[in-house]
Amino acid sequence: MQRTEISAYGEFGLIKHLTDKFKIQNESTLKGIGDDAAVLSYENKKVLVTTDLLLEGIHFDLVYVPLMHLGYKAAVVNFSDIYAMNGQPKQMTVSIGVSKRFSVEDLEQLYAGMELACKKYGVDLIGGDTSASLTGLAISITCIGEGEEGKIVYRNGAGQTDLICVTGDLGSAYMGLQLLEREKIVFAANDQAQPDFEGRDYILQRQLKPEARKDIIELLHEKNVVPTAMMDISDGLSSELMHICSQSNAGCRVYEDKIPINYQAVVMAEELNMSIVTAALNGGEDYELLFTVSLEDYDKIVTMEGIAIVGHMTKPELGLQLVGREGEEIELKAQGWNSLK
Amino acid sequence: MQRTEISAYGEFGLIKHLTDKFKIQNESTLKGIGDDAAVLSYENKKVLVTTDLLLEGIHFDLVYVPLMHLGYKAAVVNFSDIYAMNGQPKQMTVSIGVSKRFSVEDLEQLYAGMELACKKYGVDLIGGDTSASLTGLAISITCIGEGEEGKIVYRNGAGQTDLICVTGDLGSAYMGLQLLEREKIVFAANDQAQPDFEGRDYILQRQLKPEARKDIIELLHEKNVVPTAMMDISDGLSSELMHICSQSNAGCRVYEDKIPINYQAVVMAEELNMSIVTAALNGGEDYELLFTVSLEDYDKIVTMEGIAIVGHMTKPELGLQLVGREGEEIELKAQGWNSLK
Repeated sequence: MQRTEISAYGEFGLIKHLTDKFKIQNESTLKGIGDDAAVLSYENKKVLVTTDLLLEGIHFDLVYVPLMHLGYKAAVVNFSDIYAMNGQPKQMTVSIGVSKRFSVEDLEQLYAGMELACKKYGVDLIGGDTSASLTGLAISITCIGEGEEGKIVYRNGAGQTDLICVTGDLGSAYMGLQLLEREKIVFAANDQAQPDFEGRDYILQRQLKPEARKDIIELLHEKNVVPTAMMDISDGLSSELMHICSQSNAGCRVYEDKIPINYQAVVMAEELNMSIVTAALNGGEDYELLFTVSLEDYDKIVTMEGIAIVGHMTKPELGLQLVGREGEEIELKAQGWNSLK
Repeated sequence: MQRTEISAYGEFGLIKHLTDKFKIQNESTLKGIGDDAAVLSYENKKVLVTTDLLLEGIHFDLVYVPLMHLGYKAAVVNFSDIYAMNGQPKQMTVSIGVSKRFSVEDLEQLYAGMELACKKYGVDLIGGDTSASLTGLAISITCIGEGEEGKIVYRNGAGQTDLICVTGDLGSAYMGLQLLEREKIVFAANDQAQPDFEGRDYILQRQLKPEARKDIIELLHEKNVVPTAMMDISDGLSSELMHICSQSNAGCRVYEDKIPINYQAVVMAEELNMSIVTAALNGGEDYELLFTVSLEDYDKIVTMEGIAIVGHMTKPELGLQLVGREGEEIELKAQGWNSLK
């Protein structure tokens, strides 16, 4: 495979080369890459801003993550934060730090993934920074989106009888990660080993190429449902429930048998002798939406595909309870992923 | 000195601890830290967005850069990009990656510097990301600002007879860096050596604690001068002139004896046997403003303190010329700092 050294381009040449294919798709983008700052127009909308820093060895392992997938995922996880405010992502900036290990072709793969995400979700690349790094790859993305006055959904609006809803299924991305980690160890011991990925495509895709729930935000909009509180599930359901409960000054009851779980994830958990419920509660990286709606919206929600009602909010003094399959109550604790621990 | 391990806080605890002192100063900040995204209101203004990634060992050396200064500088260089669009910085997000080498007290210093910059320039901290890093410190800042319709200044508007103006003086930050590098080597050879910084406070301050030219943007506004093109000088005057000339499809003539240079920088350059003009043209990190104005504004500009007219734009076929002290013409080449070379 061809290898072009990054030093063959200057900084500005490299940026131009990598970003040329990105097309501007939004009217709100007045000026993108190429000046001291980008210029946006958000006259009748609120501006939403979110940011993420991804570091090699902490957030991703290039042994099993293809660079194109990494680029796609790095963009999509930021879009997910904007959807979680009931907004629409519109622009993003991308800064990267790259060590000498990486070639121009590597970065082309990374940016191809980001471009795919931008096209699919209608987001414009408007700026960034490209620099050398002493070790590995660093990716910092900031996403800007629009929200409508009165329709923006925070974490602090859940009422004490509201229904708790979850999209898609939980724990699959975590089981996909466990599979990849296992195969990495197998491969390290025997480099002739072929990875055993048959019938596991779903959990792999959930880990390597997650999607943001744009479809759900559009569906809720169509059906005229505005959640009372919402966030995306990136650190595990338990951790996110704690944020919503503490910011809304409420408690919650979640029913174990209502938590949506995919069959492949169950099989993988059994094979690895792990608890799939623990994975669903604490696994992280699902990028599904957790939201609450008032009881009045029950009839609408119950007919919507891809949304599960997993419990309800309570008074704060009742705490955060998980109700097990036998009716037993367990206090929920956030044990989600934390790079600083 | 006390050392608290970062792991003693969780991610959310750490963010709260570090950002508690930052006060919201702008009406446009509807919601800052604490949700999936921040919420801003920019109804009658355009939104400006700029971003920077700073990596230890590439962009800064903690052997001689105090963390408080680093925090201040990291924020200010982003504000400078917003001023360079004739805008006002209003919000910023800060993401950091930190290795185990750093304590909570270290991060307190870093954030104290950023807080000082935010207070001085009226900018709100609205979000970010805090993560572990395998090696060293990574800082990614995105700054959001406001610009007025019709008053935003790009790089591409310079007319072919416009005057070229520069604020402050150039090359001092680079000479400050050279001094710090020299003292680092002296100290490595003899750790009892005391750094020789007497009478060099100005060039050190220019390197360690630069300011953004908010004052100049306000002065121009007061005098009703809207530059035709503008950018900040972060990579050296030559490199920035090339951007303005190529984007404005014009050439330029800059006069060596008009380039503003500080006395301490001249002394330092002589001592190190370097050319101060080369430092001014290619040194970088000055964070002064380079802008062009139409000839009609000559009378206004010439009376303004802190602004030097260093030359004028020309037809593109005349190229980029530096006119030396003896009247000789030298073609300008960008040799500014480039981490990717």
